Amino acid sequence: MTNTNPARGMRDFLPSDIRKREYVIGIIKEVYESYGFEPLETPAVENIETLTGKYGEEGNQLIYKILKRGEKLDANAGEKDLADLALRYDLTVPLARVVTNHRNDLPRFFKRYQIQPVWRADRPARGRFREFYQCDVDAIGSSSMIVEAELCAAGNEILSGLGFDDFVIRINHREILYAMLDAVEINEEKQTDALVALDKLDKIGSEGVLKEFETRGIDKNAANKLLGLFDELKTSDNLHALESLSKFIGNHEKGKQGVNQILQILQLVNVNSLKIDASLARGLSYYTGAIFEANVPDLAGSIASGGRYDGLIGMFGKEQIPACGFSLGLERILVVMEERGMFQKLVEEGKLKLDSADVMIASFDESLVDECLKIAGDLRKSGLRTLVYPEADQKIKPLKYAEQINVPFVCLVKATELAENKLTLKNMRTGEQETVGTDEVAGKIKK
Amino acid sequence: MTNTNPARGMRDFLPSDIRKREYVIGIIKEVYESYGFEPLETPAVENIETLTGKYGEEGNQLIYKILKRGEKLDANAGEKDLADLALRYDLTVPLARVVTNHRNDLPRFFKRYQIQPVWRADRPARGRFREFYQCDVDAIGSSSMIVEAELCAAGNEILSGLGFDDFVIRINHREILYAMLDAVEINEEKQTDALVALDKLDKIGSEGVLKEFETRGIDKNAANKLLGLFDELKTSDNLHALESLSKFIGNHEKGKQGVNQILQILQLVNVNSLKIDASLARGLSYYTGAIFEANVPDLAGSIASGGRYDGLIGMFGKEQIPACGFSLGLERILVVMEERGMFQKLVEEGKLKLDSADVMIASFDESLVDECLKIAGDLRKSGLRTLVYPEADQKIKPLKYAEQINVPFVCLVKATELAENKLTLKNMRTGEQETVGTDEVAGKIKK
Repeated sequence: MTNTNPARGMRDFLPSDIRKREYVIGIIKEVYESYGFEPLETPAVENIETLTGKYGEEGNQLIYKILKRGEKLDANAGEKDLADLALRYDLTVPLARVVTNHRNDLPRFFKRYQIQPVWRADRPARGRFREFYQCDVDAIGSSSMIVEAELCAAGNEILSGLGFDDFVIRINHREILYAMLDAVEINEEKQTDALVALDKLDKIGSEGVLKEFETRGIDKNAANKLLGLFDELKTSDNLHALESLSKFIGNHEKGKQGVNQILQILQLVNVNSLKIDASLARGLSYYTGAIFEANVPDLAGSIASGGRYDGLIGMFGKEQIPACGFSLGLERILVVMEERGMFQKLVEEGKLKLDSADVMIASFDESLVDECLKIAGDLRKSGLRTLVYPEADQKIKPLKYAEQINVPFVCLVKATELAENKLTLKNMRTGEQETVGTDEVAGKIKK
Repeated sequence: MTNTNPARGMRDFLPSDIRKREYVIGIIKEVYESYGFEPLETPAVENIETLTGKYGEEGNQLIYKILKRGEKLDANAGEKDLADLALRYDLTVPLARVVTNHRNDLPRFFKRYQIQPVWRADRPARGRFREFYQCDVDAIGSSSMIVEAELCAAGNEILSGLGFDDFVIRINHREILYAMLDAVEINEEKQTDALVALDKLDKIGSEGVLKEFETRGIDKNAANKLLGLFDELKTSDNLHALESLSKFIGNHEKGKQGVNQILQILQLVNVNSLKIDASLARGLSYYTGAIFEANVPDLAGSIASGGRYDGLIGMFGKEQIPACGFSLGLERILVVMEERGMFQKLVEEGKLKLDSADVMIASFDESLVDECLKIAGDLRKSGLRTLVYPEADQKIKPLKYAEQINVPFVCLVKATELAENKLTLKNMRTGEQETVGTDEVAGKIKK
């Protein structure tokens, strides 16, 4: 028997999967469009040199590489010479490429969203796939805090719009982090280590962080001071937290700028979900300013994250281009929504349809097929998704079939009734059926 | 300087490209959904053995193969051992795989549409890309002519809905073709050759077909008889054409069934675009029944095509599954619509928006940024896509920028006006500007 599974770590999406995904993507697009972000799409396949060296040693190993074709292929060559193309690994490098390539066609302030799959040859695990969608939004070309503010506001609007009411968008700033480390006299070569340890606070607790500091040879006293500060901030509102941070970092020039920027963002974004978290570090070293991360209680990781990264978008060109982005964890959002029964609720509220059609037309009389198609045409014109039962031989009875595929209504077309412009409408949920005029059917179903 | 072009034969889609593509895809989806077709998506990457051997020798060469990773890779192996995965080459083989793999989860009559990119290592040319979208709709599991009828009706509705008013959907039947060849005594081993030649009638004319028959050693008399029939049919309406065909093929059992099926389809589909064309052969050998092809005058190839192919979907399983499909040439449709200025017309009619936003908010006063964001929030709530000009330092003047990015309206926020809840609204198309109440802005713009 042939293997008919999808490739390892990849998924087929059946109709109801797609309908859920499209619902979520629809809300995301709608909000981003309303903020003036524009859609961008790049090819799944990139020249291999566009990708190599951009994701670190580990990332490099996870890039899918495409075999050269025909003459170009020398099977005795090393891996490096075997492949000339590779599959998209993220949406940031392609954005940087496009921004450089189209610098004359794109506006100076380019606000783009991009929702496309990426591929990583990672070890598959629960919730980790080798093909998965990324959903990135980035504003290129401006250093203004308006950008950060709008990204947080849009992120907040999307998560609320999807029905989340318990998420927190935590916010911090790279320069505040460095200033805090300076304040407790952790010297520069130990700062990255310290950030890695602090970033785990949520997972490993204060004890764990202290242990990590010790193993990495960083002063435990410094850790204690930082953990004390974090503890104090936990119960503060945002403005008091900023005050405490200001005091803690003292006259640190860049740190003060960081505090100032966070203050600006808070003043511009009027949402309750935004919360300063001085322990938030975000692993990716390319962030240069504000950083954010959205979390819900029932998921260990984040459902969205982002920040300012002024050094990256210019990687293919000569100039440095300021940029700030926000990435929604589409696959994780879908998992949490599924686990919480949020899709079911959307179906009940009539906001999401998972069934294949609104109504099915069937007749036991083969000579009425023509009439069935005409009725179907009318129902479609009135906006109803209409199936016509396609078998004249009736191996499976249409009502049984309608039950199987979960169609809410069936129209049974009979010659005697049709002579009076009527048909039998059966409500499959209640089992009730009634004889109705062909011109009343659409109205009855919609009700 | 780094190469920042997309890979050869592939394209970046900038915002206005995407908006056009999404408009077309939106109409396609809407129509298919209304007919009860359901969305399906499969991974871009398939196990290599799923694809090899399915597309003939030539197709096999065009499949992108993905290099094995890590330990699995033995660089001294042949091409066969170097790759374990491959990029999707079409949407039919993945459908066949899914239908077999999910035979217990899918309805017996499965109507699916699938709109996803495929990849072929073909030589790039004008209008031929290495990454391009296919747009397939297939009805699996029924032999009823209702299926053919609905596919033709839906195809007609989509092309009309997109604004085409001069397309023809030509229809023919594999069994009628074979019956005609039998009627003029072309024996079986020459029939494929004859069909290849006849299929080119449009391109090479009668003379060309006669020449091809001669080169391939087929009786020229037979060709003359067929060409005579085609000539006669050209001016006949569909019913007369069927009559002539019936007479021509005589008592040919399978041919008569073909004629009967076409008659049924014609009776069920009530559209003017459907036209019998007895010379239509469609190259792909897997068709088993009715075949169709949609054309517009200004494009050499077809913009859509399809037919019944009862032998293919069961390729991975044991049972034969009847199937009929229709494939829209999305990339070609986009090219023709662009060349005909159809998108421009849609923009003028207000059905398609290509600009980045409906309105941009700007202020020359940095202290009013907060107010600008509030006004933006209100405009978004009223459904307007709203940009906020992000630069406080104003290196580029906002009005000049608005002109560059082609935003139709700009709101200028000034302290003096804002004190009276007013702002300046500038219509960038006409150059007019007026002072309006902040609560009137949305209404004015929408008008």
